Amino acid sequence: MFLSKLDSLNDAVKLIDENQKVMDIEEVPLAEAHKRVLAEDIIAYHNSPPFDKSAMDGFALRGVDTFGASQSNPKTLKIVDAIGAGDFCDKVINEGEAIVIATGAPIPEGADAVLMKEYTTDDGEELTIYSQVTPGENVSPKAEDIKKGEKILSKNTFIRYSEMGLIASAGYDSVKVFKKPKVKLIITGNELVEPTKEEIDKAKIINSNKYTIKAIAEDSGAVVSISHAGDTFEEVKEEVEKASKDYDVIMTTGGTAISKGDVVLDVVDDLGEILFHGVAIRPGKPIGAGIVNDKMVFTFSGQPVAAMSQFDMFARKYLFKMQGRDFDWHIVQREAKLKIPSQLGRTDFIRAFSDDTYARHVLNRGSGIIRSMVEANSYIIIDENDEGYQKGDIINVVFFDSLLW
Amino acid sequence: MFLSKLDSLNDAVKLIDENQKVMDIEEVPLAEAHKRVLAEDIIAYHNSPPFDKSAMDGFALRGVDTFGASQSNPKTLKIVDAIGAGDFCDKVINEGEAIVIATGAPIPEGADAVLMKEYTTDDGEELTIYSQVTPGENVSPKAEDIKKGEKILSKNTFIRYSEMGLIASAGYDSVKVFKKPKVKLIITGNELVEPTKEEIDKAKIINSNKYTIKAIAEDSGAVVSISHAGDTFEEVKEEVEKASKDYDVIMTTGGTAISKGDVVLDVVDDLGEILFHGVAIRPGKPIGAGIVNDKMVFTFSGQPVAAMSQFDMFARKYLFKMQGRDFDWHIVQREAKLKIPSQLGRTDFIRAFSDDTYARHVLNRGSGIIRSMVEANSYIIIDENDEGYQKGDIINVVFFDSLLW
Repeated sequence: MFLSKLDSLNDAVKLIDENQKVMDIEEVPLAEAHKRVLAEDIIAYHNSPPFDKSAMDGFALRGVDTFGASQSNPKTLKIVDAIGAGDFCDKVINEGEAIVIATGAPIPEGADAVLMKEYTTDDGEELTIYSQVTPGENVSPKAEDIKKGEKILSKNTFIRYSEMGLIASAGYDSVKVFKKPKVKLIITGNELVEPTKEEIDKAKIINSNKYTIKAIAEDSGAVVSISHAGDTFEEVKEEVEKASKDYDVIMTTGGTAISKGDVVLDVVDDLGEILFHGVAIRPGKPIGAGIVNDKMVFTFSGQPVAAMSQFDMFARKYLFKMQGRDFDWHIVQREAKLKIPSQLGRTDFIRAFSDDTYARHVLNRGSGIIRSMVEANSYIIIDENDEGYQKGDIINVVFFDSLLW
Repeated sequence: MFLSKLDSLNDAVKLIDENQKVMDIEEVPLAEAHKRVLAEDIIAYHNSPPFDKSAMDGFALRGVDTFGASQSNPKTLKIVDAIGAGDFCDKVINEGEAIVIATGAPIPEGADAVLMKEYTTDDGEELTIYSQVTPGENVSPKAEDIKKGEKILSKNTFIRYSEMGLIASAGYDSVKVFKKPKVKLIITGNELVEPTKEEIDKAKIINSNKYTIKAIAEDSGAVVSISHAGDTFEEVKEEVEKASKDYDVIMTTGGTAISKGDVVLDVVDDLGEILFHGVAIRPGKPIGAGIVNDKMVFTFSGQPVAAMSQFDMFARKYLFKMQGRDFDWHIVQREAKLKIPSQLGRTDFIRAFSDDTYARHVLNRGSGIIRSMVEANSYIIIDENDEGYQKGDIINVVFFDSLLW
C-alpha cells in the first residue's frame, strides 16, 4: 500500500550516500574557476613575492643609516638611482645611500628597508629623512606568501575569490575542476500551466516548481534543463529514459496519477531500481529516489514547499559531493520563541524565522504554502526521537543561507 | 603630503553613501530573475490555489460520512466519478458518495475532505473505508497561499528560489528588476604579468588582483570587465575617462608611480572630484574614492589583501544598494582565542578563523599575504576607539559568507 512503510531519514540519506557519484574533471581558464571545486592540488611554480619587494613608495636604504633620525634631528643620504615598479636595478646600496623606489619594485642589494616618502624631503640628489626605520620595515620578503614547490591548496577546495588570487600567484592560468552536474528537471502534472496574468482555465494551476527547483539546483552548482511530461506512465517513461542518457542527475516533481500510486516511481522501477519511496519526514513524506541507467533520480512532491524541503534534505548534499565539495548541515542552537509539537518517529523540518538568539516557526505551514518558505530564513529540525519543544527550549536550527553553494 | 591626514572609516563610508546611485530598471523573464532584486511590488493576479484542491491521491467525500470508520468497523460509500489532476468535475457529492480524486484536482461540490487511498479498498463502484477524516482534511483551501489582488512581495525584495515560486504563482512570467551594475576594473602596475608556469622576468610579479577583485565584485551582483593601464598619468587617464562613459562603476588597483604620489587619484582629481584618499583602517589605509562623469570610482591598493578588504569595507554596500538591495554588516559576537593589539584611532579588519564560539586571528597578516585571506573565514573588527582585546574577551566578528550576494 502506498507509503505504508516509511524509511527513516537516516536510512534514506544513507542509501543516497551509497550511490554517490563524482563528476569527471575538466580544465578551465582560471578566470572561469570562481566557485568551482579544485580537482588537483595546487603546487606553486613560483615564490610570491618572487623577490624582496617594496611595500611602499619611498626610499630603499639601510635601516641602520636612519637610526636616530627625527623631525628635530634630520639626517641626509645620497640618492643614487630610482626603481619603478616592474624595473630592476643592479646597483648596490652602500652606507649613506638611498634609491627612490616604487611600491612593488625589488629592493636593491645592500638595502634592507624602505622609508616612506612622506617622512622625507629631497632635491633629487640629496635626501633628508625625518624618521627612522628598522631593517625589514616596509619590505615584503621574498616567498612570504608562497614558497615555490609547496602545496598551497588541496584537491577538493572550494574556490572563493581569495583562492583565485592564490592560484594565480602560484602560476596557474588554468586549473582542473570538477565538472558541473547537468540536471534534467522533469515537471509532471496535467493540471499545470505557465504563469499568466490572464484568467486560468478551471482546474488548472500555475507551475511554480519549475522555477523554484531550477533555482535551488543552480544554488547547488548544477546546470538545469527543464522538460514537461503528462501524467501517464508512457510520457514520464519517455522523458526519464531520454534524460538518463544525456544528464547526470534526474529530478521530477509531482506525477501522481489517479489510482496508480506514483507513476514516476513506477517508471523508475520499470527502467531501473527504486532506492526508497516514502520517508518519515515532514514536510515531504512521499519523497522517492532511484537509479536509472546509473543516474540518480530524485522524485519530489508536486507541493512546492515539500519539493524545496526534499531538495534540501536529499539532493543538495548529493550535488555538492558530485562536484567534490564536502557538505554538512551547519546546525546552530537557538531558543524557541514558541512551543512546537512534533510526532515521535518523524523528523520535522519546520520553516522558521531565526536571528542570532531566537527561532520562531512560521505559523502557516501547509506544504503548498510557498509564502511560508518566503517568510522563513531557516529550518528548525526536530529529530525523530523528540516529541517537540516548549517555548524557551534550546533547539537545532539550520539557516537557508548556510545551504547555498 | 601623501596620506598625512586620514579620514575616519565612518566619514569615508558616509561620503560613499551620499553619492549612492541606484540602477535603472529592466524587465526580465521570470526564469532569469533568480538572485535579482525586485523593482516593483508583486500584486497577485490569481488566488493560489485557485480552488479547494486535493492534497492527496484518494477519495473526495463528506467528512461526516466517515465518522466512526476504522479497521474493525469499516464503512462503505458509493464511487460516483473520478477526477484527474487538471480535470474538472461538476458532479455534486451527496451523502454516502465519494469521487476518486488525484492530488492537485479541485474538490467537487458537496465534498469537504479527502481520504487517502491507503485507508480504503474498492471494486471500482463500492468503496470500503477503514479510517475517518475530519472536514477540511487533505484539502488545500482556495487562496490559502495567495489572495488575488494582495501585495505579496515588495519592491526591493531579493529574489531567492522561494520568491521565484511565489512570483510565478501570482501570475508573473516576467518581472521588473534593477539592472546589474557594469563595473570596469582597471589594473595598473608596470610590474604585473599574467599567471604562467614559466620563469618570470626579474622584477615582474603575477597579477592576482585581476582575479580576486573581478570575482569579489561578481559576488556582489556586478558584471565586470577588465582592462590594464601602465603606471603613467596619461595611460590611466585614458582608461578611466573611457570607462566613465560606458560603465556604472570604476574600480582600480595599484597605480602608485614613482615620486608622484598616487597617479590614479591624480587622474580622478583631474577628471572629476576626489571624495577621500586615505582612511584610518588596517589593512587598506591608502583607499581612495571619487566621482568621474557622475560615476563612482574606487581606487584600491595593489596589495591583494588590502584590495579585498577595501572592497568589503567600501564597495560591497555600494554595489548592493545600486541594485536596490539593502546591506548591513551582520556582526556577531565571539570569544577571542588570542590577544589582539590594535591602535586607537584606527579601525582594524583582522582576518580570522571563527566558529560558533570562538574567533582566532590568522597569524601572518601582511597585506600581501593572500594566504591569510584563504585561511580566514571572517573579519574581527576592532573599532577605532578600542586598543585591542585580551584572550577571552567578547569581540565583533563578520563572516565572509554573510557578505555575499
